[in-house]
Amino acid sequence: MGKNIFFEPKEPFLLSEIFSELKQKNKIKISDVKILQEASGTDLTFLDSIDYADIAKSTKAAYCLTTEKLKNFLPRTCTPVLVENVLFALCKVTKKLYPSADVDTPDKTIKAPKKSSFLKVKFGNNVLIGKKCKIGRNSFIGSNTIIENNVSIGKNCIIGSQVVIRNSIIGNSVIVQDGCKIGLKGFGFIPLKGKNLRFPHIGRVLIGDNAEIGANCTIDRGSINDTIIGKNTFLDNQVHVAHNTKIGNNCMIAGQVGFAGSSNIGDSVSIGGQAGVSGHLKVGNNAKIGGGSGVVKDVRDGAVVMGYPAVPLRDFLRNLKK
Amino acid sequence: MGKNIFFEPKEPFLLSEIFSELKQKNKIKISDVKILQEASGTDLTFLDSIDYADIAKSTKAAYCLTTEKLKNFLPRTCTPVLVENVLFALCKVTKKLYPSADVDTPDKTIKAPKKSSFLKVKFGNNVLIGKKCKIGRNSFIGSNTIIENNVSIGKNCIIGSQVVIRNSIIGNSVIVQDGCKIGLKGFGFIPLKGKNLRFPHIGRVLIGDNAEIGANCTIDRGSINDTIIGKNTFLDNQVHVAHNTKIGNNCMIAGQVGFAGSSNIGDSVSIGGQAGVSGHLKVGNNAKIGGGSGVVKDVRDGAVVMGYPAVPLRDFLRNLKK
Amino acid sequence: MGKNIFFEPKEPFLLSEIFSELKQKNKIKISDVKILQEASGTDLTFLDSIDYADIAKSTKAAYCLTTEKLKNFLPRTCTPVLVENVLFALCKVTKKLYPSADVDTPDKTIKAPKKSSFLKVKFGNNVLIGKKCKIGRNSFIGSNTIIENNVSIGKNCIIGSQVVIRNSIIGNSVIVQDGCKIGLKGFGFIPLKGKNLRFPHIGRVLIGDNAEIGANCTIDRGSINDTIIGKNTFLDNQVHVAHNTKIGNNCMIAGQVGFAGSSNIGDSVSIGGQAGVSGHLKVGNNAKIGGGSGVVKDVRDGAVVMGYPAVPLRDFLRNLKK
Repeated sequence: MGKNIFFEPKEPFLLSEIFSELKQKNKIKISDVKILQEASGTDLTFLDSIDYADIAKSTKAAYCLTTEKLKNFLPRTCTPVLVENVLFALCKVTKKLYPSADVDTPDKTIKAPKKSSFLKVKFGNNVLIGKKCKIGRNSFIGSNTIIENNVSIGKNCIIGSQVVIRNSIIGNSVIVQDGCKIGLKGFGFIPLKGKNLRFPHIGRVLIGDNAEIGANCTIDRGSINDTIIGKNTFLDNQVHVAHNTKIGNNCMIAGQVGFAGSSNIGDSVSIGGQAGVSGHLKVGNNAKIGGGSGVVKDVRDGAVVMGYPAVPLRDFLRNLKK
Repeated sequence: MGKNIFFEPKEPFLLSEIFSELKQKNKIKISDVKILQEASGTDLTFLDSIDYADIAKSTKAAYCLTTEKLKNFLPRTCTPVLVENVLFALCKVTKKLYPSADVDTPDKTIKAPKKSSFLKVKFGNNVLIGKKCKIGRNSFIGSNTIIENNVSIGKNCIIGSQVVIRNSIIGNSVIVQDGCKIGLKGFGFIPLKGKNLRFPHIGRVLIGDNAEIGANCTIDRGSINDTIIGKNTFLDNQVHVAHNTKIGNNCMIAGQVGFAGSSNIGDSVSIGGQAGVSGHLKVGNNAKIGGGSGVVKDVRDGAVVMGYPAVPLRDFLRNLKK
Repeated sequence: MGKNIFFEPKEPFLLSEIFSELKQKNKIKISDVKILQEASGTDLTFLDSIDYADIAKSTKAAYCLTTEKLKNFLPRTCTPVLVENVLFALCKVTKKLYPSADVDTPDKTIKAPKKSSFLKVKFGNNVLIGKKCKIGRNSFIGSNTIIENNVSIGKNCIIGSQVVIRNSIIGNSVIVQDGCKIGLKGFGFIPLKGKNLRFPHIGRVLIGDNAEIGANCTIDRGSINDTIIGKNTFLDNQVHVAHNTKIGNNCMIAGQVGFAGSSNIGDSVSIGGQAGVSGHLKVGNNAKIGGGSGVVKDVRDGAVVMGYPAVPLRDFLRNLKK
């Protein structure tokens, strides 16, 4: 993931500062929060599902928020921090390090771009650009579009009109059609009566070369992790990609498809219109998901599935005949 | 509902002016149109379904558009006005009182906000505000956003960029993400060949404290009644809330969910992505509706439903095994 | 279809210039690309499905891209050009004639409208209009809206705020609500690893008199053909209409409905919320499609269908009882 140019963590702190009930006696000082495979040094990570047990085994994190039941999957080098609700604890820790990443106040530094700072970039009318943005040559930014601070856009891109992009790194030759909202805070919170606790979103949106994003799509940035759209992957209009979703290369995603978050979609996957993919699933390479399907289980490489819930096409057709 | 600050009715008029065929002989003069439980004085109300018979019994309306079949549910103090098509008649009456509420001509009074009128409010670039808007302190209005006349926004709110809000009353600490369109005329009309008769929409959108509305959502204002989003209720991206829908407090509505209008959703309800809720239904408190479900019947308190059409989760799972 | 005011073809050229493998010996020079029923003179057309065999019989095209299997449906006056992949070949030919129609670079000619050029037209703030646009009297264009070059809008229209319209011809008394994106390039491409080949879109969007388009809808222009919304047809919010879809007159399309493209919807059709219509289908006049349905087969005149996949309502209800 490299250095996070969008969010800077506050000073390292002792976990006991926010978890007074903590059973551990050692004085844990946390400098950052990362996912299992990216944590190291004095980072805290988290493990809240057996699905990630394999990855947990080789984490280099110093500490891990987890439960009594899952703690044995961690290597000896990683100190388990036992809590009742992993996500709630993670939310508290992340908020302590990144206190303003839980809501998206629009960037106050945006203003009309200085032509001298963006050589060979063309701008429509009333474009607003934040501090430290990078835009490659021969790219075009449409009218009324807002690019917030630190966003990076490659060369030969076409960004449409009335678009908002924040916390995102966009490759070369990418097309983003009118009205898209990319890199906004995802839909993550701990439900509480009266005032939900919002989960900070310190991840980014990464869009690969030659990708295309249709009109009025929404692509949320990741919470701890990134949201990724692979190279040469095309999204039709009104697609919703929730936080932490990873879509591979050469995929074809038709109109109004929705991804519930944290799923991992392989390469060369095609998904028909209005289909939905639940959270935390794995869809294999070359899979085909029929229009209107509701995918609630992993899909294997090359599988063709359809239905609600989605089943192999053969089974779907057989069920119809009953 | 209180005084409607967005629409002012024309002069009271005799029903016989628009219903020459009216069987009643008494000279009825109508000053306003309201729903059964809010009508009083010289108001006209309407009753077009037996589902509202209980509420009808205690209406304080002077007059009620209804049918031969339903008229006996009205109290003696309320004069029934018998018509063949209640909604068509209601549309005619409402149009007479509110001739310009059937289409949304964008507010012509909007202009750059005077800083002196909005103390401690922060504005992005190119914000446009209509006459008599109120915005509470520490609220932020994003760039290119349009707030039309008389809209009220509480304190500590964050309204994103490229948003449009009209005919709405928004509480404190509410977040509205980029691209939302709130308070527009709903999808209501009497189908006619050649030129449909549009139903006037004189209702509002009311959004409670601490609510959050995701990117590119659309929330239509009510027709006669209001559309309501309760306190601490969170909507993910691309949700569509049609006219007169009421959503309770502490609800969790995932991405791309749609409400067809006039349904009543309880408190602490959670709805999965892409689910749809038909019109005129009641969903009980603490109900859970699975992603992709199509709800076509009332859902009881605490029920867990799934499927298309949605059934209790147990039945849904059993049907899968067949 | 008449003259295409949005795209001008390049010089006529020999098919052998792009198809070196071409078996035909005659020197074919192509001046334009049109659908079967609109081609004539030196136009090239295409036939890639037996569904269009009847129309093919009377085409006046000089040449037709097709396959060995389908060539016999063409009249003697039309020279078949045999290829393995009709759409791939069509894409190449169209790209040669219209090299810049495969991506939508926002119109660089847009600027604030001169009041003198648009008599009796009202404009909100920050409206941007391209060259040679026509707007009828008493029409209103909302704030931050972009109307690109050559677009034509009739009289008495209300175009909302934050709308983008390009490559479209809009009738009289049409309402387009806030946030719509109309006339953008559709989702058409030949999938290739590394860099998909985008299909040029030289069609338009045609919207009939008295139509209404809800907030945040997306209506893509046609590829070779036009996308058409009939007179007095109403679309609710967040509807997606893909390229080449034809919707008849007096239709009622509820929120979040999606059309996958190239389907032909009759007159007076009503479609419930979140329903989807697959590509290349025919839906008859007066058909009713239930909310949430997935239509994957033709629907006859007056049929009432529901379900996923959609079946006659009677069958849908019977299946529920099993």
